[in-house]
Amino acid sequence: MNLNNLFNNETDVAEYPDGHIVFIEGEPGDAMYVLVAGRIRLSVRGIEIGHLEPGELFGEMALIDAEPRSATATACGSCKVARVDERRFTFLVQQHPFFALHVMRVLAARLRHMDDTLH
Amino acid sequence: MNLNNLFNNETDVAEYPDGHIVFIEGEPGDAMYVLVAGRIRLSVRGIEIGHLEPGELFGEMALIDAEPRSATATACGSCKVARVDERRFTFLVQQHPFFALHVMRVLAARLRHMDDTLH
Repeated sequence: MNLNNLFNNETDVAEYPDGHIVFIEGEPGDAMYVLVAGRIRLSVRGIEIGHLEPGELFGEMALIDAEPRSATATACGSCKVARVDERRFTFLVQQHPFFALHVMRVLAARLRHMDDTLH
Repeated sequence: MNLNNLFNNETDVAEYPDGHIVFIEGEPGDAMYVLVAGRIRLSVRGIEIGHLEPGELFGEMALIDAEPRSATATACGSCKVARVDERRFTFLVQQHPFFALHVMRVLAARLRHMDDTLH
């Protein structure tokens, strides 16, 4: 399973300057993202909850359950981000089961992390 | 998407009496389950975190990330449970993208629920 190979040929890649907000908590979302280069800061209700490194995906929650963004994503220094819209997301799940499993692993890791935080 | 149809023909279905423990927090897991009839109580560190109704799946976390069970699942009254081992889980993800999306939705719903609890 190499997620990088899967996103090497994404055409919808944007470069953002430091401080650029990719999406804001509470807003509707119609895409997920893969961080290609740089760093992204995630925050919930103004509190930083973590940073993402290249290769990591974010914003997939809004695609999965069509609920508003659960966090705010901000560029931490300049960064390069690939945008994956709903159509492409559905295609990836259908054609690349390892992508689906990867998304599940990302969600499971977050759940375990929150579980540890809660207790 | 009808998950019930997908599990209507499961052959590995067991009936458990009230109080039967399906799995225990902290133990390794090699299967997930679908509640066919009855009710399942989930608890973490002795604290009840919720109940499952027929049609709901549980125990999928251990299949996704190969980590120990994150909760204890106990029969609440007599219940019927279909067991889905790793081989069948992988098959379902590969052959039924809506199953993969359903698992993602279940995880996303739990994340949002925990997020609300945390804040």
